Amino acid sequence: MDFTITVLGSSAALPTATRQCSAQVVALEGFRILIDCGEGTQNQVRRYRIKFQAIDNIFISHLHGDHFYGLPGLLSSMHLCGRTEPLNIFAPKGLKKILTDLFITSNSVFSYELIFHELEGNEPRVLLENKKCRITAFPLVHSVPAYGFHIQEMPQMLNLRHGVRHTYNLANDEMIRIKMGEDYLAPDGRVIPNAVLTKPPKPPLSYAYCCDTRYDESLLKYISDVDLLCFDCTFEAALSSFANDKLHGTTISAATAAREAKAKHLMLTHFSARYGDVEPLVEEAKTVFPNTFAATDGLRIELNNM
Amino acid sequence: MDFTITVLGSSAALPTATRQCSAQVVALEGFRILIDCGEGTQNQVRRYRIKFQAIDNIFISHLHGDHFYGLPGLLSSMHLCGRTEPLNIFAPKGLKKILTDLFITSNSVFSYELIFHELEGNEPRVLLENKKCRITAFPLVHSVPAYGFHIQEMPQMLNLRHGVRHTYNLANDEMIRIKMGEDYLAPDGRVIPNAVLTKPPKPPLSYAYCCDTRYDESLLKYISDVDLLCFDCTFEAALSSFANDKLHGTTISAATAAREAKAKHLMLTHFSARYGDVEPLVEEAKTVFPNTFAATDGLRIELNNM
Repeated sequence: MDFTITVLGSSAALPTATRQCSAQVVALEGFRILIDCGEGTQNQVRRYRIKFQAIDNIFISHLHGDHFYGLPGLLSSMHLCGRTEPLNIFAPKGLKKILTDLFITSNSVFSYELIFHELEGNEPRVLLENKKCRITAFPLVHSVPAYGFHIQEMPQMLNLRHGVRHTYNLANDEMIRIKMGEDYLAPDGRVIPNAVLTKPPKPPLSYAYCCDTRYDESLLKYISDVDLLCFDCTFEAALSSFANDKLHGTTISAATAAREAKAKHLMLTHFSARYGDVEPLVEEAKTVFPNTFAATDGLRIELNNM
Repeated sequence: MDFTITVLGSSAALPTATRQCSAQVVALEGFRILIDCGEGTQNQVRRYRIKFQAIDNIFISHLHGDHFYGLPGLLSSMHLCGRTEPLNIFAPKGLKKILTDLFITSNSVFSYELIFHELEGNEPRVLLENKKCRITAFPLVHSVPAYGFHIQEMPQMLNLRHGVRHTYNLANDEMIRIKMGEDYLAPDGRVIPNAVLTKPPKPPLSYAYCCDTRYDESLLKYISDVDLLCFDCTFEAALSSFANDKLHGTTISAATAAREAKAKHLMLTHFSARYGDVEPLVEEAKTVFPNTFAATDGLRIELNNM
């Protein structure tokens, strides 16, 4: 299954000439979600040629402005471009009221329905599950209620072993039942166990987004074994005390999260505007977790090809 | 006096790849104001190298989102960049409450004071007057309370005629008094009338911003004789009935406003996203008012050099 992440914004609170505030689009075979929506996201969506009307679900990690100030403009543009499909917004308590009040103030009436889903509590929660993926929110460690998101492909059907179709002269409906795990009852009465007929599919790919947060061991259970971990890397390691106070990640804490969670790859993001060149930060993180790279605006990652 | 206008955004409600939502910076000898603040204004300010912390006064024409959705991000960035100077925001009723609520929701506490001034009523009102300019708000004709802004240089001092200083052997304080309009009492008791000593200064330059509005004769008294009129030109003339319903301007109505107001130049702005190339719109307006040009993002106009 096609599973891609497009980074729309990778800066911390202050955008720069090359980095906009946090936003990413995750797509699984045409099913697109938006995670965070910093100011200017609607521009980034156009710049990187994302079909934004195909986004039916938006996930806001927390209510600091650099993660949601782009929502009013994006939602307005969806209306102006003729949207009629409902749009789901998953966000911590407070967003519904502020957006509703804002749209009253700006006299905005939309051609589509906005459906708000509140993120709350300290337990992980499955927010959405369909044929393509399961999306789970889990609590981060930040100065306001903040949530990470774990996105996992739904398990694929079993694969038929080579030659099985021919050997048993299987019809289409028989193949589907076998791929779904059933044994095969042959015309002569023999029962062929499923394990003889099939091989397990490729393990489902998974992606976790943790921003904004400081590193904490409590996060590991939510992000273990992900194919790609995207983690808050606002600061270099020398500023770890400051980062801890601000409840943000650093190079080393992000890399530690990836190593301890047994992630396969680590993407650093949410860089402070003080860093023009983030390559030294990537190098610092690699001392702990070698499979590290930096998010950049416009970067498109195909999880299948990593 | 240096009197420049920098266009930061010239699109209507839907930004495009080349045009951002409404925003302009007007500068008079280092005194900078921001008019309107569509989403992404803070990026445009950086792109066009405006010293944004030098802006102490922001004027919001009306509360449609494309004219103020950039405020939360800009104000936050001013804080993050260490601003301590108070900031005045002139806007129709409603903005203070929505921004205050938004900043509570996003847990934002600023290092500087925000001072809100409400625009209200149907009479023109001087909002600000200092040594450099006088800024007057006046009512536009739009679907929500909307205000235009007239910005005029303060009158300069009189100019001494050639040779006067030498003829009367004037000291500095005597020259200043004469330039301020006093007659000169010579040591021999003669009174030299001011008109003999001075020439009138250059007439003060003026700029008027009318967006969003449809054309109406009631506007003319507020914008008469301006050196530059910036007027809503959302649509071509063929859509004038639609424009009228939407209370927006067209090529011809903007040009009519300029002609009837005896403006010296006309700048069209707030172009609908349907127009990739606005040159045909400029040509259409020129049939009524030849001194017409189109706003483009990044355009810098020096009123002295027009």
